[in-house]
Amino acid sequence: MSVPMEKSGSDSVARQYDRRLAEDLFAALRAATADGSGVWRPSYGAGESAALDIVEARARALGLATQRDAGANLVVTLAGADPDLPFLACGSHLDSVPQGGNYDGAAGVIAGLAVLAGLRRDGIVPARTIKLYALRGEESARFGTAYVGSYALLGQLKAADLAARDPRSGRILADCMREVGVDMARVERGEPLLEARRMAAWIELHIEQGPVLVARNLPIGIVTGIRGNLRHRAVECVGEAGHSGAVPRWLRRDAVFATAELITHLDRHWRTLLERGRDLVVTSGVFSTDPQQHAIARIPGLVRFSFEVRSQAQETLEAFYDLFLAECSLIGEERGVSFRFDRRIDSAPATMDSGWIERLKRAARGLGLPDEDMPSGAGHDAAVFANAGIPSAMIFVRNEHGSHNPDETMAMDDFLAGVAVLRAALMEVVA
Amino acid sequence: MSVPMEKSGSDSVARQYDRRLAEDLFAALRAATADGSGVWRPSYGAGESAALDIVEARARALGLATQRDAGANLVVTLAGADPDLPFLACGSHLDSVPQGGNYDGAAGVIAGLAVLAGLRRDGIVPARTIKLYALRGEESARFGTAYVGSYALLGQLKAADLAARDPRSGRILADCMREVGVDMARVERGEPLLEARRMAAWIELHIEQGPVLVARNLPIGIVTGIRGNLRHRAVECVGEAGHSGAVPRWLRRDAVFATAELITHLDRHWRTLLERGRDLVVTSGVFSTDPQQHAIARIPGLVRFSFEVRSQAQETLEAFYDLFLAECSLIGEERGVSFRFDRRIDSAPATMDSGWIERLKRAARGLGLPDEDMPSGAGHDAAVFANAGIPSAMIFVRNEHGSHNPDETMAMDDFLAGVAVLRAALMEVVA
Repeated sequence: MSVPMEKSGSDSVARQYDRRLAEDLFAALRAATADGSGVWRPSYGAGESAALDIVEARARALGLATQRDAGANLVVTLAGADPDLPFLACGSHLDSVPQGGNYDGAAGVIAGLAVLAGLRRDGIVPARTIKLYALRGEESARFGTAYVGSYALLGQLKAADLAARDPRSGRILADCMREVGVDMARVERGEPLLEARRMAAWIELHIEQGPVLVARNLPIGIVTGIRGNLRHRAVECVGEAGHSGAVPRWLRRDAVFATAELITHLDRHWRTLLERGRDLVVTSGVFSTDPQQHAIARIPGLVRFSFEVRSQAQETLEAFYDLFLAECSLIGEERGVSFRFDRRIDSAPATMDSGWIERLKRAARGLGLPDEDMPSGAGHDAAVFANAGIPSAMIFVRNEHGSHNPDETMAMDDFLAGVAVLRAALMEVVA
Repeated sequence: MSVPMEKSGSDSVARQYDRRLAEDLFAALRAATADGSGVWRPSYGAGESAALDIVEARARALGLATQRDAGANLVVTLAGADPDLPFLACGSHLDSVPQGGNYDGAAGVIAGLAVLAGLRRDGIVPARTIKLYALRGEESARFGTAYVGSYALLGQLKAADLAARDPRSGRILADCMREVGVDMARVERGEPLLEARRMAAWIELHIEQGPVLVARNLPIGIVTGIRGNLRHRAVECVGEAGHSGAVPRWLRRDAVFATAELITHLDRHWRTLLERGRDLVVTSGVFSTDPQQHAIARIPGLVRFSFEVRSQAQETLEAFYDLFLAECSLIGEERGVSFRFDRRIDSAPATMDSGWIERLKRAARGLGLPDEDMPSGAGHDAAVFANAGIPSAMIFVRNEHGSHNPDETMAMDDFLAGVAVLRAALMEVVA
């Protein structure tokens, strides 16, 4: 794909190179992995492997050294002056969900390649080695566990994860990993494939999966933390069914009115905590009366609903969970209903490295860009690396229509702003 | 079934007769129409006809005149001194839902028979004729339209009603009605089978289908009105789906939080109206996120819910409906959601005759019984007669576990109290 001159006329030379590389690679990835109007690069499958091959070929053409690590990820290396110093890592993942968008994951890989290619082109030898990781298995939607690629690198995959079966193909994760070249003997022993203390930092550029940068009209954001969550898949509110005409309010035990009051009280607590500066989102994505029993003229005796709270701070998660339990108890007592809870599922928040956050913000300001910080609501490999003790940070690029769908929309100028910030922040350390 | 002496030892002679008659007839009806642990007397079907036959045989054995009217209902007549005066009518229905209870409907028929038998036994000739109606087709659950028996008497059945098909047997209502002897030519012409101005009153004893008399420890209640209702089968709250982690509160359009707030506000309005003395019940019996789209980690973009409000007063129904629409509009504006309404379905309330309410209350007080008044939340043939201009009234008898199930529980002493009130009130007019 050629770049029309009128589009790149005002670009610096480096920006022209970045733009051409990015437009070429996004187009090549889309063409090779098209799935309807979106893309499909199944984790540890053919589309993901094709994406790694495309990026690797381009890296080699740009004169960069490439290899596949023991996790079968693509690693592109720009050797530093002192090979004994821990290396800097950047990158993201190349897999996608079915009918996914072309930018989720790939943007971070192409950004890293643009930075390494630029340094190579300019003949710069960094003070320490910089590696680009094109990771596999971040989405892994078909196997139910996300972040398989980074968990494998850190020796954190469990036997149950490896035995998970893709319902579409009937194949298990371990077999798919083995087929693309993962060293399964080490993975199955829980042995790290990466020496975490050798990785001095993990810097990941990613499209924002929410609407905040669009709403605030900002091209990029600097991520302060990745929200963890507490969940119940199905809480039951148990009241008593009855004739909708014949039972007065004082004798009702209505599960819908009780759960509606619970949600409304939680909403009030949520607003209060936001006003106090806490980071928090609350969702009840699944909510239903019992399809086997419900009727227009029957007081609903049962509601099943999911409960999810996300925050960057474990303390906030626990505080809100306490409020949730307290409200269930109070409303239960007042309305003659009871709440039954299934297993609580925890996912820990991850804090981004404050030094790197500051470095990325300085880089943004130095380039005349906004340095707005924001949480990541979705999970990322960066959370896995951060929770393994590797200083990690993320740059978000403005994106419309969310992710995991063919309508992801990232403007090239926003992407190039993110690349420039990534380059400047890395150079601050290795120049 | 014989009555043990220790149970009836303290009964008056009249009460002993009433008790024996009731115990015999309830037992005979149960035995003839057993369906699992409950009964089944399908409208315009075999079980209903068997029930009419049982009651008719007993009425004849007691020396009362019987006939089947043009609606194939059983009519038992005690002729009055002046045959030109409009007659008093009492009774209820003899059909039931599948696996129904033995008392819903039958109690009112047996109560009426006990009164007529007592007058006959005592040689009393009432000032005007008293008729007992054992109506067919009140439940008509299998054909979807209730009160078929009374609608037929008043010439109010529509072609669509008559063409309704029982999904179990595949037969249509008109054929089932014809088969048991209904004059379908007149019914299809919409011709009344009853001269409404000849019926001076309709007095119906019925079990309470709600828990109020049990909760208040009262054997009987006097019904002031039958609640009408306004309904929407399915209102849709349309918001916007999104990633549960990546969309902050200020950018959400969450259909569950919006609808929960709506229900909670409606609950507040409901309480306020009750405190102002209005009669009102509010129910959202069916409430669900979209099973095709919902997920724990997705902000719900759609909720479908039913809306039902019931009251004895049309004015209260309309006032609450206005509040409902106003809340939908306000919450929609505040939360960026919209509410879409399907067709509004109306069922008019029916007011019981104030003269007869007072007569029943006087009768209760005269017997040393409580004269508590209460609404009927469920519909009854009495509502059809009342809305046709026939002065109507109802006596409720305490009953546990609701109705339309095998667990209906009516104590014989409560039933006999209801019979005594019915007798005393009728006697006040015809003595």
